[in-house]
Amino acid sequence: MSEFIKFKIKNNIATIKINRTKKKNALTLEMLERLSDIGESLKSEKNLLCVLIMGNDGIFCSGIDVTNFASLANNKTLLNSLMDPLEELPYNKMQKPCIVWQELAVPVIAILEGPVFGAGLQLALGADIRISAPTAKFSIMETKWGLIPDMGITQTLPKLMNYDQALLATLTSTLITAKKAYELGLITICTENPYQKGTELAEKFGSKSPDALRAAKTLYREAWKEANADNLQLEASLQTQLIGSSNQMEAVFANMEKRRPNFSKHSISDTKS
Amino acid sequence: MSEFIKFKIKNNIATIKINRTKKKNALTLEMLERLSDIGESLKSEKNLLCVLIMGNDGIFCSGIDVTNFASLANNKTLLNSLMDPLEELPYNKMQKPCIVWQELAVPVIAILEGPVFGAGLQLALGADIRISAPTAKFSIMETKWGLIPDMGITQTLPKLMNYDQALLATLTSTLITAKKAYELGLITICTENPYQKGTELAEKFGSKSPDALRAAKTLYREAWKEANADNLQLEASLQTQLIGSSNQMEAVFANMEKRRPNFSKHSISDTKS
Amino acid sequence: MSEFIKFKIKNNIATIKINRTKKKNALTLEMLERLSDIGESLKSEKNLLCVLIMGNDGIFCSGIDVTNFASLANNKTLLNSLMDPLEELPYNKMQKPCIVWQELAVPVIAILEGPVFGAGLQLALGADIRISAPTAKFSIMETKWGLIPDMGITQTLPKLMNYDQALLATLTSTLITAKKAYELGLITICTENPYQKGTELAEKFGSKSPDALRAAKTLYREAWKEANADNLQLEASLQTQLIGSSNQMEAVFANMEKRRPNFSKHSISDTKS
Repeated sequence: MSEFIKFKIKNNIATIKINRTKKKNALTLEMLERLSDIGESLKSEKNLLCVLIMGNDGIFCSGIDVTNFASLANNKTLLNSLMDPLEELPYNKMQKPCIVWQELAVPVIAILEGPVFGAGLQLALGADIRISAPTAKFSIMETKWGLIPDMGITQTLPKLMNYDQALLATLTSTLITAKKAYELGLITICTENPYQKGTELAEKFGSKSPDALRAAKTLYREAWKEANADNLQLEASLQTQLIGSSNQMEAVFANMEKRRPNFSKHSISDTKS
Repeated sequence: MSEFIKFKIKNNIATIKINRTKKKNALTLEMLERLSDIGESLKSEKNLLCVLIMGNDGIFCSGIDVTNFASLANNKTLLNSLMDPLEELPYNKMQKPCIVWQELAVPVIAILEGPVFGAGLQLALGADIRISAPTAKFSIMETKWGLIPDMGITQTLPKLMNYDQALLATLTSTLITAKKAYELGLITICTENPYQKGTELAEKFGSKSPDALRAAKTLYREAWKEANADNLQLEASLQTQLIGSSNQMEAVFANMEKRRPNFSKHSISDTKS
Repeated sequence: MSEFIKFKIKNNIATIKINRTKKKNALTLEMLERLSDIGESLKSEKNLLCVLIMGNDGIFCSGIDVTNFASLANNKTLLNSLMDPLEELPYNKMQKPCIVWQELAVPVIAILEGPVFGAGLQLALGADIRISAPTAKFSIMETKWGLIPDMGITQTLPKLMNYDQALLATLTSTLITAKKAYELGLITICTENPYQKGTELAEKFGSKSPDALRAAKTLYREAWKEANADNLQLEASLQTQLIGSSNQMEAVFANMEKRRPNFSKHSISDTKS
């Protein structure tokens, strides 16, 4: 497993590479845990300058590995272990791999190319800065599978995108080009060579006082912080109602069978729980 | 009266049409109440897919019917009945027709063409998604009449527009083209045929699990929610001071007489009440 | 000293001119206090229509006069007198000259050309509306000197700019053109003649009811208000740790000696204090 997430620190720059290109870098539960563990371990790297998160072979990440999570609908114990908040933390096991980067004192850069879908997009949104190739494609994909984005999006997307554009993109799972993504605020920089730009940026950070770098991120993290961390729990409680519901199953089967879905009346509670 | 607001539900899509084109779809108090009632009634439509709010004959809505509200300045009882919060709700009778759409679980789309002024713009801002023709014209018109926008704008505009651009547009009542409105964040989509685009979008929503659609709007409504609902009351308390004041009357008369106004020193309290 | 900040009120329009072009309008402590005093005095100008803040001779403001503040690192009493909050206020002596404009009931316009750097940019951000010449250049300059922006930026920039773009600009101290600044939300209007545009805007304000103008700014100030005023104190506490630290001194010396800096491990506390 471990080679699916490659990790090294060199010249005080941590590089995390998603490396499962045969499956378009789809994320398994183990890979998500590995990302969380790496993020956690970096908190104590005293000389760290910055973190680069990237894919491989022209692919950032196509999202969750659906086959890996298929058993969730019938395994309430597993589902709860993923959806309940981690001990004394505001986020759960699915949210931590996206949110942990915000807790690092140093800047985190995501290098994007190819598909940046679903969980892949939410991972990218957890970084401070997103550098994208012009060929990258984005989608808030989850409603395609009868689900909602629930990996920290309430804490990351409102800092970047207007409500209407975010809702529209989510309700339609539209494919978004890099040019449009820049216009909407989803990415920070669009450039032909995002790897080179990321390296240049890391070097630029190296020419700055590490104290000032860290203080600036600390300050801005607080200044742009979402007022309501409870929304992480709302992501989880809404998603728990969706997973395995008849309409969610119908969305999955209709997509797999490439037919028009036949939904029943909506069945989950609308109220905030 | 009732034909001024046309309303139907077909294929689980609610269509609300403002239909008073002789008066450029200016809104009377009765029309506002009808909008509130329709919004309220839709909360219990269990199979509802989405809501379309539109105008007619190339006109969305030119704002409040000023003649209908002329008596307000001299009728404190009527004024209070409009400006005081509705029982156990954070908004009043003037705010509800704009805010009620945010309380629906399903997405609400405004289809915009021609004038989108004053109360018409605030109604459009209450929708989740705004689809506009390139020929539509926008204005936060209220200061022209010595008033402020007070129909929920504190809960809707900050999700879409930067403070400086919003204040500038409001202080000048500038006419804003659809192209500029898109650039500023006021509209979601600018397209030659907004009615067709709205219908396509509704159909797209129909291909999604209704549970996921509703959960996504619920989640995003919370994630982008304004921290301070008290500002609805601030809208009302500031406006109550303005209505019928000597400077407000002077603004109205100068506009009607097409002359330069002659204002006295500002007379209302600056402090938040 | 006093001629370094010129101030007059004419036709109810207050004009504040930074007038120290030999030093590129760099701000001394005395000039900052003068700005605070002018802002404070304008609160009681009952007929005031609006405020224009501008530079001179093609220069807005290149930032703090570093020579004027060099003694700070060794003078803890002076440092504390600048960094501690003013009595019963949320801001300190360095923040007040940028924040006081938000407390005025009337709109404040900054007219920008030439360098708008560091403290100069934070002063401009304290205005409600920024009108810029196409030739103006912007930089969130502070990390160049091993410092962070600490003059109210947590209350002004989040209303205008996305988190990622703001952090990137701050961590790199990049020079930003007026065109890019408009795209990022840093400025409100980019125009060939910002002085003329500012005067036109002031005249436009004069055609509006002064009550409506003031009520609109009051309302929007509340609607876009940052939830967390404590972040003003966070600016100060982080900066106090940075000033005079070995890495901050190294940043200053390396810049002055035009050599690559040689930083030690980061030494300040990462945690919010």
